[in-house]
Amino acid sequence: MRDLTLKEIIERIKPVDRQWIEKAKQHTARLVMPTRALGRLHEISERLCGIQKTLKPSINRKAILIMAADHGVVEEGVSAYPQEVTGSMIRTFLKGGAGINAISNHVGAEVWVVDMGIIPILDPASMDEGDRLFIEKVARGTANMAKGPAMTRQQAEESIIKGFKHADALFQKGIEILGTGDMGIGNTTPSTAIGAVITGKSVDEMVGRGTGLDDAGLLRKKDVIRRGIQVNQPKRNDGLDVLTKVGGFEIGGIAGSILAGAYHCRPVVIDGLISTGGALVADALCPAVKDYIFAGHCSQEPGHGTMLKYLRLDPILDLGMRLGEGTGGALAMGIIEGALRAFCEVFTFEEAGVAGKN
Amino acid sequence: MRDLTLKEIIERIKPVDRQWIEKAKQHTARLVMPTRALGRLHEISERLCGIQKTLKPSINRKAILIMAADHGVVEEGVSAYPQEVTGSMIRTFLKGGAGINAISNHVGAEVWVVDMGIIPILDPASMDEGDRLFIEKVARGTANMAKGPAMTRQQAEESIIKGFKHADALFQKGIEILGTGDMGIGNTTPSTAIGAVITGKSVDEMVGRGTGLDDAGLLRKKDVIRRGIQVNQPKRNDGLDVLTKVGGFEIGGIAGSILAGAYHCRPVVIDGLISTGGALVADALCPAVKDYIFAGHCSQEPGHGTMLKYLRLDPILDLGMRLGEGTGGALAMGIIEGALRAFCEVFTFEEAGVAGKN
Repeated sequence: MRDLTLKEIIERIKPVDRQWIEKAKQHTARLVMPTRALGRLHEISERLCGIQKTLKPSINRKAILIMAADHGVVEEGVSAYPQEVTGSMIRTFLKGGAGINAISNHVGAEVWVVDMGIIPILDPASMDEGDRLFIEKVARGTANMAKGPAMTRQQAEESIIKGFKHADALFQKGIEILGTGDMGIGNTTPSTAIGAVITGKSVDEMVGRGTGLDDAGLLRKKDVIRRGIQVNQPKRNDGLDVLTKVGGFEIGGIAGSILAGAYHCRPVVIDGLISTGGALVADALCPAVKDYIFAGHCSQEPGHGTMLKYLRLDPILDLGMRLGEGTGGALAMGIIEGALRAFCEVFTFEEAGVAGKN
Repeated sequence: MRDLTLKEIIERIKPVDRQWIEKAKQHTARLVMPTRALGRLHEISERLCGIQKTLKPSINRKAILIMAADHGVVEEGVSAYPQEVTGSMIRTFLKGGAGINAISNHVGAEVWVVDMGIIPILDPASMDEGDRLFIEKVARGTANMAKGPAMTRQQAEESIIKGFKHADALFQKGIEILGTGDMGIGNTTPSTAIGAVITGKSVDEMVGRGTGLDDAGLLRKKDVIRRGIQVNQPKRNDGLDVLTKVGGFEIGGIAGSILAGAYHCRPVVIDGLISTGGALVADALCPAVKDYIFAGHCSQEPGHGTMLKYLRLDPILDLGMRLGEGTGGALAMGIIEGALRAFCEVFTFEEAGVAGKN
């Protein structure tokens, strides 16, 4: 079967069914506890019911799909770490030694990695756990967005379709909830640029220190993002144009993963700044995707809260995390599962034989 | 062996060892991620190291200890639910059908219940799972704090010692982290009174709707708490006096559980308003206990945030929950365990062979 086009994917995505959410609310009202006493846990479980069209939602099989790529803009000195770290962190993900591995093991999620366009050429066949890595290079790193478009429009579309394809495969294998992850030295720069363009907030308010820039680096990064927007003039209502001009291949891959969740009626938990950059692109292409997204956490990066607010997504956790890799989303999966279990396992007043309100 | 006296317990509690926290920070600095990129997760794991005096902390065995009691002040009309619900919820805990059971199953925690003084007389021997319930009635409900002291000073001490005894037994059995839980119709009234007395904040700012009071009920509750404080004049620096005059038997039991955690050098996760009332009493008796407490979440009750701030505890979750039973603390155990696993399982830069900062 031929791959779906981006247009076909978007056309098949529908908003979540409100009727299932209403039915879920009626069930919540019968649980043996004061009215909606578990607060946001109820909203989470009811939205899961709406997404999966059931009163018995399940998220037993979990996966984190990490999209990795390199960024031409790194030549401007926008990261505290050398570019080679992108590739060496992929090896660490496969060896099971990164933050995302520990958190994923804790919540019971599988970890998969897609090379969407890192500079080095890796050979999965020669690597331990290499079957967890897919090579889907759109190119060996983007172009420098401070000087022109980061990629062509065709590459932008390709990155989304490739992201869709791998998330689609996971859902077809039975994954019931997907977390988006990212790896790419320098990728807070394009993500912040996407955030500034789409939300309309000023670059100054949005830019943070990423993996740990010093004051001079922070000024440089602000300048680079301003130049990138100035030179490229991305159109904020055209998600593909924004991704083309100031994006990254892993950000396109994340946008594609989110589209796949909505396409399969499965929840997607986004992580921090980079994942939310991908969510902004996906939302610009297809606003119905918002219904399927849970915001795992609010990152310490200053622009992230603004981007989540624009998407009207309320983060589940707020723990000052800024690692990326999908860690915040993975950790939030534990909360989502707790919400689900309360919804499914708590007795009704009637079952418990407990008196209701006076 | 005779039981320890409250004085003996307090004398044996020491602040957490700063040296272990420093050693843990040095380990965090070597993990293959940007400096402290997991934010508060690092503080959590480092404090666990300090509490357990190790760089390999463990919280595999978890328990929630629910303290239940009834309250004479209910005759003033301060709860939306009838008093019989206290006893029927204990039955629900044993049957596994309450919110705390679902969340505890999710995080892998055992659930234990102590009847610290409910009105009905339960017979554990005739109940399913009755071996999870201990009868330790201090009395069959407190007296009405709006008219005089809720209990005698001797009963207050007895409630703390009984709480200590049951938490102590769990730690001796190998429990490595304890969550405090509560059940008692009307118990946001004494807890808020304790909060107002000890923090010094006005009753108006502190009082909330508990399980769901209407506007008239809320006014009544404020008036009752004001009268309780006026009539009894509790001394804010004397934890036992505050508990005696405006407390509850389950609140004393929770204070005792917290003391047991500190005594055994084991972390205790407190839940919402009622648990934090217990924490304020424990802290007034022995300020070193704070080092051993994790604040699981910030409840929707308005006074709770103020009480946590007074204790200088930063809540892990903030999800608008207000169920009690220990649910917020139990859910936060999942986050604490995620923090611990990241600390223990993530490779160092050296192990991963990843380059450090530029």
